[in-house]
Amino acid sequence: MNEFATHKNEELRDTVSTSVYPARSLKVLSRAEVARLSDATEEVGGLLRQVALAVLTSGEQGDDAEKMLETYKDFRIEVHQVTRGMRIDLENAPGCAFVDGEMIRGIRELLSAVVRDIVYFHTEIHPSPYFDLDSSEGITNTVFEILRNAKLLDTDVDPRMIVCWGGHSISSEEYDYTKETGYQLGLRGMDICTGCGPGAMKGPMKGATIAHAKQRTLPGRYVGISEPGIIAAESPNPIVNDLVIMPDIEKRLEGFVRLGHGILVFPGGVGTAEEILYLLGVLLNPDNADMPFPLVFTGPESARDYFEEIDRFVGLTLGEAARERYRIIIDNPVAVARHMAEGMQKVRQWRVDTNDAFYFNWKLTTDVGFQEPFEVTHESMASLDISPELPVHELAANLRRLFSGIVTGNVKPNGLRAIREHGPFEIKGEPAILAALDDLLKRFVAQHRMKLPGGKPYEPCYRIVS
Amino acid sequence: MNEFATHKNEELRDTVSTSVYPARSLKVLSRAEVARLSDATEEVGGLLRQVALAVLTSGEQGDDAEKMLETYKDFRIEVHQVTRGMRIDLENAPGCAFVDGEMIRGIRELLSAVVRDIVYFHTEIHPSPYFDLDSSEGITNTVFEILRNAKLLDTDVDPRMIVCWGGHSISSEEYDYTKETGYQLGLRGMDICTGCGPGAMKGPMKGATIAHAKQRTLPGRYVGISEPGIIAAESPNPIVNDLVIMPDIEKRLEGFVRLGHGILVFPGGVGTAEEILYLLGVLLNPDNADMPFPLVFTGPESARDYFEEIDRFVGLTLGEAARERYRIIIDNPVAVARHMAEGMQKVRQWRVDTNDAFYFNWKLTTDVGFQEPFEVTHESMASLDISPELPVHELAANLRRLFSGIVTGNVKPNGLRAIREHGPFEIKGEPAILAALDDLLKRFVAQHRMKLPGGKPYEPCYRIVS
Amino acid sequence: MNEFATHKNEELRDTVSTSVYPARSLKVLSRAEVARLSDATEEVGGLLRQVALAVLTSGEQGDDAEKMLETYKDFRIEVHQVTRGMRIDLENAPGCAFVDGEMIRGIRELLSAVVRDIVYFHTEIHPSPYFDLDSSEGITNTVFEILRNAKLLDTDVDPRMIVCWGGHSISSEEYDYTKETGYQLGLRGMDICTGCGPGAMKGPMKGATIAHAKQRTLPGRYVGISEPGIIAAESPNPIVNDLVIMPDIEKRLEGFVRLGHGILVFPGGVGTAEEILYLLGVLLNPDNADMPFPLVFTGPESARDYFEEIDRFVGLTLGEAARERYRIIIDNPVAVARHMAEGMQKVRQWRVDTNDAFYFNWKLTTDVGFQEPFEVTHESMASLDISPELPVHELAANLRRLFSGIVTGNVKPNGLRAIREHGPFEIKGEPAILAALDDLLKRFVAQHRMKLPGGKPYEPCYRIVS
Amino acid sequence: MNEFATHKNEELRDTVSTSVYPARSLKVLSRAEVARLSDATEEVGGLLRQVALAVLTSGEQGDDAEKMLETYKDFRIEVHQVTRGMRIDLENAPGCAFVDGEMIRGIRELLSAVVRDIVYFHTEIHPSPYFDLDSSEGITNTVFEILRNAKLLDTDVDPRMIVCWGGHSISSEEYDYTKETGYQLGLRGMDICTGCGPGAMKGPMKGATIAHAKQRTLPGRYVGISEPGIIAAESPNPIVNDLVIMPDIEKRLEGFVRLGHGILVFPGGVGTAEEILYLLGVLLNPDNADMPFPLVFTGPESARDYFEEIDRFVGLTLGEAARERYRIIIDNPVAVARHMAEGMQKVRQWRVDTNDAFYFNWKLTTDVGFQEPFEVTHESMASLDISPELPVHELAANLRRLFSGIVTGNVKPNGLRAIREHGPFEIKGEPAILAALDDLLKRFVAQHRMKLPGGKPYEPCYRIVS
Repeated sequence: MNEFATHKNEELRDTVSTSVYPARSLKVLSRAEVARLSDATEEVGGLLRQVALAVLTSGEQGDDAEKMLETYKDFRIEVHQVTRGMRIDLENAPGCAFVDGEMIRGIRELLSAVVRDIVYFHTEIHPSPYFDLDSSEGITNTVFEILRNAKLLDTDVDPRMIVCWGGHSISSEEYDYTKETGYQLGLRGMDICTGCGPGAMKGPMKGATIAHAKQRTLPGRYVGISEPGIIAAESPNPIVNDLVIMPDIEKRLEGFVRLGHGILVFPGGVGTAEEILYLLGVLLNPDNADMPFPLVFTGPESARDYFEEIDRFVGLTLGEAARERYRIIIDNPVAVARHMAEGMQKVRQWRVDTNDAFYFNWKLTTDVGFQEPFEVTHESMASLDISPELPVHELAANLRRLFSGIVTGNVKPNGLRAIREHGPFEIKGEPAILAALDDLLKRFVAQHRMKLPGGKPYEPCYRIVS
Repeated sequence: MNEFATHKNEELRDTVSTSVYPARSLKVLSRAEVARLSDATEEVGGLLRQVALAVLTSGEQGDDAEKMLETYKDFRIEVHQVTRGMRIDLENAPGCAFVDGEMIRGIRELLSAVVRDIVYFHTEIHPSPYFDLDSSEGITNTVFEILRNAKLLDTDVDPRMIVCWGGHSISSEEYDYTKETGYQLGLRGMDICTGCGPGAMKGPMKGATIAHAKQRTLPGRYVGISEPGIIAAESPNPIVNDLVIMPDIEKRLEGFVRLGHGILVFPGGVGTAEEILYLLGVLLNPDNADMPFPLVFTGPESARDYFEEIDRFVGLTLGEAARERYRIIIDNPVAVARHMAEGMQKVRQWRVDTNDAFYFNWKLTTDVGFQEPFEVTHESMASLDISPELPVHELAANLRRLFSGIVTGNVKPNGLRAIREHGPFEIKGEPAILAALDDLLKRFVAQHRMKLPGGKPYEPCYRIVS
Repeated sequence: MNEFATHKNEELRDTVSTSVYPARSLKVLSRAEVARLSDATEEVGGLLRQVALAVLTSGEQGDDAEKMLETYKDFRIEVHQVTRGMRIDLENAPGCAFVDGEMIRGIRELLSAVVRDIVYFHTEIHPSPYFDLDSSEGITNTVFEILRNAKLLDTDVDPRMIVCWGGHSISSEEYDYTKETGYQLGLRGMDICTGCGPGAMKGPMKGATIAHAKQRTLPGRYVGISEPGIIAAESPNPIVNDLVIMPDIEKRLEGFVRLGHGILVFPGGVGTAEEILYLLGVLLNPDNADMPFPLVFTGPESARDYFEEIDRFVGLTLGEAARERYRIIIDNPVAVARHMAEGMQKVRQWRVDTNDAFYFNWKLTTDVGFQEPFEVTHESMASLDISPELPVHELAANLRRLFSGIVTGNVKPNGLRAIREHGPFEIKGEPAILAALDDLLKRFVAQHRMKLPGGKPYEPCYRIVS
Repeated sequence: MNEFATHKNEELRDTVSTSVYPARSLKVLSRAEVARLSDATEEVGGLLRQVALAVLTSGEQGDDAEKMLETYKDFRIEVHQVTRGMRIDLENAPGCAFVDGEMIRGIRELLSAVVRDIVYFHTEIHPSPYFDLDSSEGITNTVFEILRNAKLLDTDVDPRMIVCWGGHSISSEEYDYTKETGYQLGLRGMDICTGCGPGAMKGPMKGATIAHAKQRTLPGRYVGISEPGIIAAESPNPIVNDLVIMPDIEKRLEGFVRLGHGILVFPGGVGTAEEILYLLGVLLNPDNADMPFPLVFTGPESARDYFEEIDRFVGLTLGEAARERYRIIIDNPVAVARHMAEGMQKVRQWRVDTNDAFYFNWKLTTDVGFQEPFEVTHESMASLDISPELPVHELAANLRRLFSGIVTGNVKPNGLRAIREHGPFEIKGEPAILAALDDLLKRFVAQHRMKLPGGKPYEPCYRIVS
């Protein structure tokens, strides 16, 4: 009995082949639906495989999606019809998703969410004539339908969903700050929604979990909103208990602003700046002038410069009215949480007064310019109109596109390829704004907020032309 | 203080004009959905008004639909869009649906179910290309979708739903027997599904409610499946806590056999005979030969003759195999309940063995002849093929249609009109079968099981030709 | 298969011998407790057997306790210790408590309540030095402890418990009225507490159950408070889902007024008059002058005379102040229910203002004269002081005792024996009061509200002496 | 709006004076009980204050109890009676227990548990004649009563409570190992019970919380069993959601073995050795020979020596039979968790077979020698019989006392004082055993597993005499 057992368990590196039945979502399906799903699995198979893999390695891998795909290159996923519904067959799935051969329940839920959002959307929602993807209202209805189908719209809950944005590779000091802030939010009864992944997307959820445990309100809601192009690199951390995968970046952003009751921005890089410009652009629409929408930029002392520069850039480009919509709070999680808690009261009262739902911000007007997918090419970048004569929310929309293009040119495979082949994007417009932009990006580099693939020295992917 | 208060409350006869928000169903709707619903209200307004009125007078009126419509001739219902969803506006609604100006919660749920099944089906389900109403599978999928949309498919429940059929105007002795039978079923953990309305549709639910209270399993499930042509005359009794309204008679019958795990037949009239032939016809399909499907005909002594005659007619027309599928138990509710309880075990095992769902009987094969709506006309009646050469389940389908036509000719407005204008239906076929049919109906008349409008003496609405 | 099964089930008249484990109460006991319980079963065995039998025949027998005891003369109950707790062994228990050999869950709960209140009280509560049965506060604490031990004190519930008093053998018109009143109370969210048994104790619960089903608030709370001397004749009806057995009449009465938030009195006989005098006596204590306590006397037209006479007698003996504490409403269940619903708001506000619990009326002052058991003998009856010079609540206490004595002399075994041996009780006091009393009782007889054992003609069990 | 807010929140260091109402426990009290509690607060006030302070600083302080008491020297706690129950008044309470002036819910629960276990026990349980503290059975019943009163005995739960023992100041490598082990236990559905405090008492709970979140079984049960002499130094970590405070060390140890279904021992110091000897002594009682009781000693490589020495000492003193009762697993959390999961199946089957409760190990025989408090003095230490002739479980009891005395002499205020005044304890007995003991302790010192107050060099507090 007492020989000392020291054989380290090797299972975590192993793979498992098995079948699972869906959890929560997709439990009651008709035979016709399952047949369509099964067929569609072939069409969307590559995408499904990649996103499923991200979920199955939830909390295990870093942000190196390539390495993960290589490690599990024999992984297969298929959806099959059985009499009573759907069965998901997995081959060579990552062992870390299982305990003694049985899939961890939370991962099973996330996997079901993936099938739901990718395959079910493809067969059931997308073909419907009712979802007009060319109109602002049609896009909003689509976002609503995806969120409702994910059971994220709960009628019985007061406003308390705080969206947290920020970088996925921040310093450990800044990560601890996001945890402490999430903790203070959780102590005051708020839930957390982020974009999934590590860093500023994980810290607030972790802090809130501890606070919810202390306040005996476990489990809180920890919502992740992702999209196929991102999830492989930013797989849902283990705390996420509601996951939804939007078809593209713009619907993901709209998901955040329709579902969230307030937004916190932690420090990040260009992507975070893109999100800020998106949100300010939406809020500056005159129809939204009176709507309370708590918005705070926050971080520890190390983040002061980052937000000062953002603040300066916003003042210059979008004016004082834009600066009125947010508050910057440095190094004070308690003050942040109190500000948000007070904001929730105002949001609640506004929704009651305007007879709007608590679970979906119908009244927020979004210009279709913020909703249509922006395809980044040399042509689309060159034709962006960056002019102070534009209405301010249109200028914001174009600046948002500009940042989106720079992110693509910096890190996304298609962007890198385009730059390699055709040289940097050429951008033009009001010189003062473009100079400020240039300056802003240089400072991000100096603060090490722009990580490039392979650790290469930064070289701008754009060129300002006149 | 002590003046004796004797002013009888007059409210129950009054009407109320108010607005209500949907309960349970339809709580989270998109603005586009509400807009479509609101538009559709005009298209289906007459039907909606009539069915809503049946629900609002739930448990109050008798089966005199005409009188009810006259009493509340100023009643109006409209569906409107508000920011957060749907509002139902009612004008001059029956006061009996309200307590101190507030609608009774259960009635609000039933009213929401009506809007859901009539308007929502009209706008959301019916136009979908996925529901092919010309194929057997397409019709079954439609029935599934309506039941799922009504939240009637619960994955966590063992088989225990007993469908009860029988007449709505039975003797008080027979009514008490249905109550006692429901009580014995409820004591053994079974739930009840009926067609709504009084008599054999209400008694079992009432008995089961008392039993569920004693066994501390309140609230049980009391499901009503109705259809627009019937609900006005057979409004849901107050115990029904899940109501679904199918588009037509055939889908209603399919709803019963897909949702129920066993069926009890109490005495009734021609309509009950129609239901029996439908069910036997389905069960005689060779594909269903091995499937356990507990089926009992039962009643007190007074019902012995009724079932003897049915039994004889089935033996003559459909043969011994058909007689094997049911059991007749006279005057013994305990034996009935035990038989059903044992049957539930067999159904459960079969569903496990065949990997079928507990909540929907996917494996039951239904010939499209039992699913397509049968439109009753002189032509369709004349062309029914009543021949012993037919496969037995096809003969059953035609006999079912024949009974359906006789019900129409006896009591439904369009049937009465057709008979008045063109004389009795002419029916032809195998003389032995038609003679048996004629005999069967005469005995129903002798037993007072055929009530005709206005209490007129019975005159057959058909004529046998050779 | 199709031989007609007509053998009537005989089980209901059979007996069952089996063992059951306690439900709800008494599930987690120490071994020492079970040992004491087991020992005590011998000491209190006769009482336990009799009360258990009443519960096991719940809803089956009439009020003929003698006949029931005779029918089940072989019934035995024993409490035994097993490692994990307590086992109740039953021999020859009434078959009606079982379904296919398994005890009905609700009856198992009631049986556990009986063991809890009789045996557990005997071993655990009664011997404690903390319960001083000689002081008013000590008696109140005992009542509290019994109710708490029965899990009847729920902190999360707003005031809504309506106590209903009245006769157990009332006319069918009056019974229907109690049902309709319970229905109207239930529609407005109120729960029901009665003394168990048939008649006015069952009707309101039955009505409320239907209303709770319609309002989707099932299961409501249907509390029965009984005592050993009564429960055999008035066994809990099947709807009672919380049963508590108080040691004597006075603690039962105190249970009603501490637990209830309002009281309804339906017509009854002398016993009902006793309850009215008890309650008025308590409410007339000057300390209770400001406390809201909704109290309504109600019935259909046939009850008008009954309440007029009670009202006149109260006015004469206790004065106008007493008449101010109640309201008489004839033939109007809706008005009764509305009055109570408004009263619940006042009670709630008062409890908040005075920081009193919702679940137990601590602030009600009860004079020890209303709390001490009154032993009925010729001596105690003769020495009752019935004098207008007494403080009004003391006069009420003595009148309550007087009525209690008359009930005993009329119907209880020990009272009947005493009268047979020593002649009628001699009572003396203020002639005007005694004459009014005499008159009141004669009218009860004329209204057939005094049922005597064996149907003998009424002969007063008392004699007024001067 | 955009002045940068950087004033660090100071509240956490502030104190708060306020009143709170009890949570969960103690919600429904009689007025007499509250009066007794209020009176007793004076008697046990010092103890109550000290333990309450430990709870209010939950998760904030280290193990420096002295410093905490000094920091909050103005802290006051009083229990007062209000009509509806009990109010706890706090003066100058640590600000870290509050959020925006409101006490954190979990801390309010822990505080209520403290009042319950200290004051309520003092007034309600201790004076009862039913708890005989001189007999083995009486002590066990008391332990049962305290656990039941704390609502820790849940009848509906399968065996899955793992008790974790070990040091409170372990290395960070060992702490991470306890977290990983808790995580693997949690993934397999097990709950955690520890002695409260940091180190090996906190790590497993933290790991299990993450696992329960992933398996969607939040909140798990995280039980802390403490006693007044320890809790100030080892305050409950924030994850504990069920706290019980036993009156003394021996009842705390009995609480662990009656409530737990298996025990894990992580590395610790002398205190951990004391716990091991206690448990082996109990298990070696011949009555317990057949009872399954999973017991594992585990840690990372750094703990190998520690357990090897313990194992050698056990073999020498208690023999091979004792070594058969545990299993040592080094550096393999997955193997530990699987072993425990299999053990739970055996425990479950045994409890079913012997008809024992799942929630309390009634069948475990404990000799009164393990239950009576051992008062450490020079006399009691000198008179311990350490002889190989003793029955093995008596020898174990005395060795347990010996270790207990050494802990006291090393670190507890009364022990330190006694050593200072009278020199080291003199212990005598079998030389081979005492030499082994001496050797064991020297190795603990060498491994830095014995921390002494003030960081002084280790000097043994005992002297072996012959």
